[in-house]
Amino acid sequence: MADWNPALYTRFEDERTRPAAELLARVPLDTPRLAYDLGCGPGNSTALIAARFPDAEVIGLDSSPAMLESARARLPGLTFAQADAASWVPDRAPDLIYANAVLQWLPDHATLLPRLFGLLAPGGVLAVQMPDNLAEPTHRLMREVASADTWAAAIGDPAVAGRLGRMLEPAGYYDLLAPSAAEVDVWRTAHHHRMADAAAIVDWVSATGLRPFLEPLDPEERTGFLAAYARAIDGAYPCRSDGRRLLAFPRVFIVARRAA
Amino acid sequence: MADWNPALYTRFEDERTRPAAELLARVPLDTPRLAYDLGCGPGNSTALIAARFPDAEVIGLDSSPAMLESARARLPGLTFAQADAASWVPDRAPDLIYANAVLQWLPDHATLLPRLFGLLAPGGVLAVQMPDNLAEPTHRLMREVASADTWAAAIGDPAVAGRLGRMLEPAGYYDLLAPSAAEVDVWRTAHHHRMADAAAIVDWVSATGLRPFLEPLDPEERTGFLAAYARAIDGAYPCRSDGRRLLAFPRVFIVARRAA
Repeated sequence: MADWNPALYTRFEDERTRPAAELLARVPLDTPRLAYDLGCGPGNSTALIAARFPDAEVIGLDSSPAMLESARARLPGLTFAQADAASWVPDRAPDLIYANAVLQWLPDHATLLPRLFGLLAPGGVLAVQMPDNLAEPTHRLMREVASADTWAAAIGDPAVAGRLGRMLEPAGYYDLLAPSAAEVDVWRTAHHHRMADAAAIVDWVSATGLRPFLEPLDPEERTGFLAAYARAIDGAYPCRSDGRRLLAFPRVFIVARRAA
Repeated sequence: MADWNPALYTRFEDERTRPAAELLARVPLDTPRLAYDLGCGPGNSTALIAARFPDAEVIGLDSSPAMLESARARLPGLTFAQADAASWVPDRAPDLIYANAVLQWLPDHATLLPRLFGLLAPGGVLAVQMPDNLAEPTHRLMREVASADTWAAAIGDPAVAGRLGRMLEPAGYYDLLAPSAAEVDVWRTAHHHRMADAAAIVDWVSATGLRPFLEPLDPEERTGFLAAYARAIDGAYPCRSDGRRLLAFPRVFIVARRAA
């Protein structure tokens, strides 16, 4: 897949930073020494971690060079490095592994989450937030539009492009971590984001979930796909009483602490 | 209905206070002068409001004399008064009307919420949290057990005891308030509370949602009803990997601000 677009991603930065802050607020640590921000993106979550834990060594990791460049420009005092969360192993055992809106891109959560949890120092915390929106109209309609003859050959199986079958139920994440954790807190929140119009919803997902659908298309196909998708979104998200649209965006949060 | 039981209600105080704190954290006010805590119960939420806004006049209201007595004993420095949120009208326009886990007991939200919002001073905030768990196994099974011949005569229509049909979709609350508000924030969160066993889940709802089902029964019927309900709960909430049960508890949050 081509590299990420930090400018498009940060267009909805307030909305994207809110769950990052809510996840961090639930981390039961006072003075971690070493904290990793997995999938740090343009550094918005890394900045939050550094502000809450000013004495910690905070390191942001991402697989995207463009995102890392954007993060370094924004936070020149912090360390950023390229890494793939699926295989990453830290030099020293961290007190906090924080993974906001990244693990949903990776397969095999039943192995991945216990592996990350096992990397922690005693008393350490794994904090994870993942969008859980594959059943929402935004994502269902990507798959529906992609299954039309016009684009099916280029995009392939919409279930693959749409990353179906990776996410577990919230209780499934509890089951994975509870036997080896001192404490596991799991919750699922759907924020209802107020969007100016249907096009804003298309822009939002263009920076993330829509990328695997758009990448294989040539520019002309892309325009056609986006037009068909925008029509579908317009129908699925009706105008509210003030003329705006509400984008319900469910997310799963997991905070697991190792025994000290 | 008989009066509430503050001791039973506060048995799960940590879990019940968490949504109260999360609601308060989203209130976009710095120095409100007058704040009302509608349905203050034993005062756990009133204490949070007073701690966040130490210069505000904070008044707790509840319809239950037992809850008010418990709140006064806990917070002797604050004012508590008996009132029914459905008809309450303040002397002066408040800057904050905070209603945590109370409006779900009242009918006609389409009238009630705009009425409360209309009572605010300019720039004021209405902050509401309501359990949205009537479709959860806890509440579905209350209605199922109540429909058995043994108890149907005493309890009557389970849909009435179960308060079906009062809650709107989250977007419905947005629609009610958005046209007259400067800002409306709506979200829905399901915490997954870790419970020791099925009996703990029964205890939890015994203090709240189960009350209209238990009140009409004589002591012997109550014992039988609770036994049948406990069996149903035991089946609906399987043991997790650590032997505990997870109680998914969805709640709707609404924060609406008037233009200054």
